[in-house]
Amino acid sequence: MDHLHNWLALASVGLRGQRYRKLSEQMSLAELVSLPASTLQQIGLTQRQAHGLSYEAQVWVEQALAWQAEATDHHLICFDHQYYPPLLKETRQPPLVLFIKGDPTLLALPQIAMVGSRLPTPTGRKVARQLAAELTQNGMIVTSGMAQGIDSECHLGALHAGGKTLAVLGHGLRQIYPTSNKRLAADIAQTGALISEYFPDVRARAEYFPQRNRIVVGLSIGTLVVEATIKSGSLISANLAAEYNREVFAVPGSFYNTQASGCHHLIQQGAKLVTGIADILEERALFADNGMKGNNEINLTLDLCTQQLLDNVEDIPISVDVLAERVGMTVTDVSIILLELELLGKIAVVPGGYIKVGST
Amino acid sequence: MDHLHNWLALASVGLRGQRYRKLSEQMSLAELVSLPASTLQQIGLTQRQAHGLSYEAQVWVEQALAWQAEATDHHLICFDHQYYPPLLKETRQPPLVLFIKGDPTLLALPQIAMVGSRLPTPTGRKVARQLAAELTQNGMIVTSGMAQGIDSECHLGALHAGGKTLAVLGHGLRQIYPTSNKRLAADIAQTGALISEYFPDVRARAEYFPQRNRIVVGLSIGTLVVEATIKSGSLISANLAAEYNREVFAVPGSFYNTQASGCHHLIQQGAKLVTGIADILEERALFADNGMKGNNEINLTLDLCTQQLLDNVEDIPISVDVLAERVGMTVTDVSIILLELELLGKIAVVPGGYIKVGST
Repeated sequence: MDHLHNWLALASVGLRGQRYRKLSEQMSLAELVSLPASTLQQIGLTQRQAHGLSYEAQVWVEQALAWQAEATDHHLICFDHQYYPPLLKETRQPPLVLFIKGDPTLLALPQIAMVGSRLPTPTGRKVARQLAAELTQNGMIVTSGMAQGIDSECHLGALHAGGKTLAVLGHGLRQIYPTSNKRLAADIAQTGALISEYFPDVRARAEYFPQRNRIVVGLSIGTLVVEATIKSGSLISANLAAEYNREVFAVPGSFYNTQASGCHHLIQQGAKLVTGIADILEERALFADNGMKGNNEINLTLDLCTQQLLDNVEDIPISVDVLAERVGMTVTDVSIILLELELLGKIAVVPGGYIKVGST
Repeated sequence: MDHLHNWLALASVGLRGQRYRKLSEQMSLAELVSLPASTLQQIGLTQRQAHGLSYEAQVWVEQALAWQAEATDHHLICFDHQYYPPLLKETRQPPLVLFIKGDPTLLALPQIAMVGSRLPTPTGRKVARQLAAELTQNGMIVTSGMAQGIDSECHLGALHAGGKTLAVLGHGLRQIYPTSNKRLAADIAQTGALISEYFPDVRARAEYFPQRNRIVVGLSIGTLVVEATIKSGSLISANLAAEYNREVFAVPGSFYNTQASGCHHLIQQGAKLVTGIADILEERALFADNGMKGNNEINLTLDLCTQQLLDNVEDIPISVDVLAERVGMTVTDVSIILLELELLGKIAVVPGGYIKVGST
């Protein structure tokens, strides 16, 4: 197999950057991929991963290459590619391959992640569009998740301002979710890019959206939360940004606006209150000066039954839905904990769900 | 003259706590007041103050005593009185006498200063009433300035919740300003108290309102700004609170609400964002534990022509209006700088306006 094949094969069994780096200390990429299944298990891969890499990866690789050949704007960006975004590489579990539809050179430009509620207030929508447009006009790339609500408004604001925008998706690039965003996706790909770590035919799943968020945040010098409730995915995104030592920005809202409660919570924990884009551009200047920022003290405590969940993840892939039912939690809550566990290197995503991984 | 006479005499020439403390290191109160005018000047009083203390104070003293005799709820609380509020005494320029109409025992209870715009939004009014009511129901005394807008809403909220509230006024207690608040003033005095450092017949002047604010803030363990624009007296109050090492609280508002801009500015500078009274009651607990708080990093920079103003204040009292015209600034801006200068001990308020004082 050639270089790209090897990266795709590793990605297909749920290996990510942190794991790969450890393995690469012992051998080259080509050596790793050509090891027999028994040896792969000895160096720490699960039975499932070892088997997948030895016997199933080729199907995934071919799917990916077929997708790449479909159009000139389809790109596969591997972990060591010159276009692989350096900020994403610094995060805990960067994907080994990024599937890109659009302009891959944008990935390395300074981005601001904009996230927020799928059910924002009219004011929240207006703020999202305005800030996205102004950031775009000031040379920032707006990166979001193309969900309904704030995400979509941010992409639209950037596009209407004549700018390029990046959308990270929680499914393969042959899928588009929500379907109401097909037109938006086409517009984004025209000048900006759609990004996914999932192989092209992978369908959206609830647990992929928190995963997608870690990429949105990982690509960006800071994360701006426009409107969000306390228990929302946006706060998880903010938490990840803080973990990555990136700035967290939040837009304040009325005392009585429950959609602002998450933003207010973040500000109380140290996020920067945003009254206009100057507050954000300032950070870009600092970032350019200093590279990574110093400590960021935000740290949301997810008071959830992490150990109980972990105990239910084994070597046979388990889906979020089954897990949620088994532990009596919502799919959203379970997804959030799974993301945390994955970033801690305790579990991995593979086709069919989550598996436990060793501590090596 | 007896003890009370002496305090009133000193207050009548614009002496305040910081100045008095220095002089009291050299002599007793009675000795100080009985010094001849020439000696008073030698120990650092201005010609005007020395003359006033020697020849004019008696008129003021009699006015004050007559007012006190008018009603059983009229009280004169001197600097060394058991009811003199300890937190106010810790500030830079505490009044030597407080004129109280109402219950003077409330002065020493834990208070929260609530301040804000005279032209708030309907939401701002609602928040002010609600927070004042809830604070009252949780054992806090709400202290404000009885101005129109937020101030009045705070007093009303406290009263409607069945609580006692303190109003600090920028004029003597025979006056009521604004006149539309006569009913409110009577209600406040019924269960709470009206407070002033001005002699009973002194009329409201623009420059007295920032002065009044320093007492509102000085009485309180923290200052809560409900709604305020960037260039408002409320931000000066917040600045004073920070100078006194008291907590500053601010209520967030919509991104598009200009009446929230001052609050957002304060939060960016370190004020605590308030989403409910729990954020404030927490501070009361800390205050009870530790007495004064540690450093508070808020420090508004008043980019105004301080030296130019100071150069125009001399030994003959000059009014704010004349000063404002002379330096080409608004009365509000001039009043703010004068307060700063006064708190620095560089000028003093006397009947007729401001005078320069020596550095001793």
